[in-house]
Amino acid sequence: MSDPAPVWFEDAAVGQIERFGRYEVTREEVLAFATAYDPQAFHIDDAAAAASPIFGRLAASGWHTAAMGMRMTVDHNEAIGRKTLGALGIDEMRFHRPVYPGDVLRVETEVLEARVSGSIPGAGVVRIRTTVFNQHDKAVLSHAAGILLPRRPAD
Amino acid sequence: MSDPAPVWFEDAAVGQIERFGRYEVTREEVLAFATAYDPQAFHIDDAAAAASPIFGRLAASGWHTAAMGMRMTVDHNEAIGRKTLGALGIDEMRFHRPVYPGDVLRVETEVLEARVSGSIPGAGVVRIRTTVFNQHDKAVLSHAAGILLPRRPAD
Repeated sequence: MSDPAPVWFEDAAVGQIERFGRYEVTREEVLAFATAYDPQAFHIDDAAAAASPIFGRLAASGWHTAAMGMRMTVDHNEAIGRKTLGALGIDEMRFHRPVYPGDVLRVETEVLEARVSGSIPGAGVVRIRTTVFNQHDKAVLSHAAGILLPRRPAD
Repeated sequence: MSDPAPVWFEDAAVGQIERFGRYEVTREEVLAFATAYDPQAFHIDDAAAAASPIFGRLAASGWHTAAMGMRMTVDHNEAIGRKTLGALGIDEMRFHRPVYPGDVLRVETEVLEARVSGSIPGAGVVRIRTTVFNQHDKAVLSHAAGILLPRRPAD
């Protein structure tokens, strides 16, 4: 398969929406991520999760949900030919609902702002709202990321 | 070893600072995390990272750095007897500098705000600034998290 034509900073239009991804959340992966990075009881122990007023049953770490959203985003960007230069930061990350083993996640993104970088030559900054949804079309996580994209080279 | 006495919402004072953690960043773990969750070229390929104007050499995913900071925080909370009820969200996450294999990370936290929850009985919300530093005492990542803590039970 040939690579897709590159997608540049100039291709990002404010208001543009993209929908992509499918990620099946497994109990094994929830436990593995939480054991490594967020071993709070409600992420690794069924009884503790059942006793939690927030979770009710074993639920993924919010950092894990963010990471799964990132994976879907990277795969999508690769599929359409968009390469980022990195990220500046993340704002307004909210954990709207728990993510449980068996959930199937997907992503919607919206371009909130786009501006040429003042400090990095050949780069633009886009502010992207990312929302991760579960199989019930309920938002589980959202955030706004500042992403560096390469500008289209002059001919 | 007996469990430490519990630490409650009421024990969080605005301005309180805690310093803790030691996390050795290995190349193996940088590659494993990025391969699973953030397989952009500068996180999984030495040549691509060397060509990056941001990274210069293979660098950890920012989500991985956040996750390593979380692990140090969970371990610290467990050591001092603090149990959270979960997190509401994360604001102002910034990737100040790249994190490279061989770096050794630590954490500083500061309590920015503390208020009783209006919606969850028996809970308080603290806003905590978390800063992850490398072995050169340079900040690599910071964010402000809204954390739910249980209130001290009435006698």
